[in-house]
Amino acid sequence: MSSKQDIIVIALGGNAILKPHEEGTAQDQMNNITETCRQLVQLLKRGHQLVLTHGNGPQVGAILLQNEAARNQVPPMPLDVCGAQSQGLIGYMFQQALRRELSRQGLSQSVSCVITQTEVDADDPAFENPTKPIGPFYSEEEAARLQQEFDFAMKEDAGRGYRRVVPSPDPRSIIERDAIAALLQQGGIVIASGGGGIPVTAEGKQLSGVEAVVDKDLAAHRLAEDAGADVLLILTDVERVMLNYGTDSEKPVSRMTVAQAKTYRDEGHFKEGSMEPKVRAGIRFVRSNPEGRAIIARLDQAVEAVDGTAGTEIIA
Amino acid sequence: MSSKQDIIVIALGGNAILKPHEEGTAQDQMNNITETCRQLVQLLKRGHQLVLTHGNGPQVGAILLQNEAARNQVPPMPLDVCGAQSQGLIGYMFQQALRRELSRQGLSQSVSCVITQTEVDADDPAFENPTKPIGPFYSEEEAARLQQEFDFAMKEDAGRGYRRVVPSPDPRSIIERDAIAALLQQGGIVIASGGGGIPVTAEGKQLSGVEAVVDKDLAAHRLAEDAGADVLLILTDVERVMLNYGTDSEKPVSRMTVAQAKTYRDEGHFKEGSMEPKVRAGIRFVRSNPEGRAIIARLDQAVEAVDGTAGTEIIA
Repeated sequence: MSSKQDIIVIALGGNAILKPHEEGTAQDQMNNITETCRQLVQLLKRGHQLVLTHGNGPQVGAILLQNEAARNQVPPMPLDVCGAQSQGLIGYMFQQALRRELSRQGLSQSVSCVITQTEVDADDPAFENPTKPIGPFYSEEEAARLQQEFDFAMKEDAGRGYRRVVPSPDPRSIIERDAIAALLQQGGIVIASGGGGIPVTAEGKQLSGVEAVVDKDLAAHRLAEDAGADVLLILTDVERVMLNYGTDSEKPVSRMTVAQAKTYRDEGHFKEGSMEPKVRAGIRFVRSNPEGRAIIARLDQAVEAVDGTAGTEIIA
Repeated sequence: MSSKQDIIVIALGGNAILKPHEEGTAQDQMNNITETCRQLVQLLKRGHQLVLTHGNGPQVGAILLQNEAARNQVPPMPLDVCGAQSQGLIGYMFQQALRRELSRQGLSQSVSCVITQTEVDADDPAFENPTKPIGPFYSEEEAARLQQEFDFAMKEDAGRGYRRVVPSPDPRSIIERDAIAALLQQGGIVIASGGGGIPVTAEGKQLSGVEAVVDKDLAAHRLAEDAGADVLLILTDVERVMLNYGTDSEKPVSRMTVAQAKTYRDEGHFKEGSMEPKVRAGIRFVRSNPEGRAIIARLDQAVEAVDGTAGTEIIA
């Protein structure tokens, strides 16, 4: 139970912004975000401070597709720039929706989205092995053209066509952490590190963007550590972390120690690129802050998760 | 002369990001922004604090064109959302370039871009008379289709084709002003209100985006007032405000009082949508802060303008 006023970093899954069956209009996205914000306001009413971070897969996918469609008229932007655009898009919607829900409840915290860069190591082994699919599906011919023209790594995706894959390096630090801290200190709600932040590498102190995607849950851990958060709450589409997920012997876990979590991980219970990074982010968080709480829960159970009655808590 | 450590709000014209002859690649934009940042760092070295704002015409134009080109695959985003994307795009580039130039000079201020909404009145007369052209040029047939399909106002533009025109309402307040103030207080450099901010109207306290464009210089005045700025510096592509601009009797002005500026304006010396809003922003600023300085200068003379040896200063 959290009775004191905690700093909670919330990592929102893609379903907080867009549901799988939806077309993806601005109104679709605003409706889902508004629904998400209704819950978040419940946490704010209890006096907690929030830092929000979110995925950006469908949005950056749409932007890449638009860049591709207009490529003979407008120079396509590289992935880092498209990521920055998606942070603006989603951040704006959260700023507006959250302010609206706050004012309905008579609250008046400031809400702001900070464009965020995440530093990664230039020699992260992920750069040798691109794994993260982004953007639209292509035919074999188109895939070959992109590979040749732009040196993109393309991968066949379960019979649905070819997609570009990019490296997913480990986040080392959040470049805008001082700004985020200043906003928190003033009592504001901060939206940051959308889509895991824009990945940048540093040569000396000179940053430059790279064509990669940082896992948003691992970036959320860095954000939580930098913000001195009490709680890292990772919201997704399942109620709890599951052992033997998707099988007959599926079993929900409501609490696990770091040691148990690692054993389960080694046993292969957590899907790579899905539940695995969430558990890894949680392990990292409670290791760096043993008093802190790391919880993985379903999007509509955020309040219950903080209350300790829903989700899976990872404890030191 | 500014010898003390001032808060300077700088409104950057489009040429700070993209030159007219350029194609508009990410590299073009980053090169220009880097060049701009080199100067800004000179002001930072003197201990001044900076808030940067900028135009977004070519960027939002490109985003609108990309939306149009992919409209059968991805739902097009409305203008407010495209504006938010452009803030992310440009803000990211400034964050990265400015940090790079700061570190070259041994400085380490934090730099952050805050996605910004600008409140406008729902009954602003501008909504009756859309004047601001945005996005690509269309043929007469395409223009007719857009007018019919989306109820866009379309206008013929000097024989170059048809463009969509949107209202340009007066900015009333900067919604994220508290966040901007908190970042300044911490000593950071803030990028805000890009493209004049995303225009929103309020019904009670409920904000919603509107299809309009706020003049970036008038928004810069609001920003300057909210930030308690000492200097509002509007950078553009001419060295000074001119009387009889473009004629044989063209005459640069290095200093004018508010009363003189108004007389010149009434005499029609300042072009609507171009120099006129810059002068208007300057008048508003020195009226609200008679100790403050409002200067209109050429992009490459920012330092000299603050020193009082370049540009046109408007005094109370």
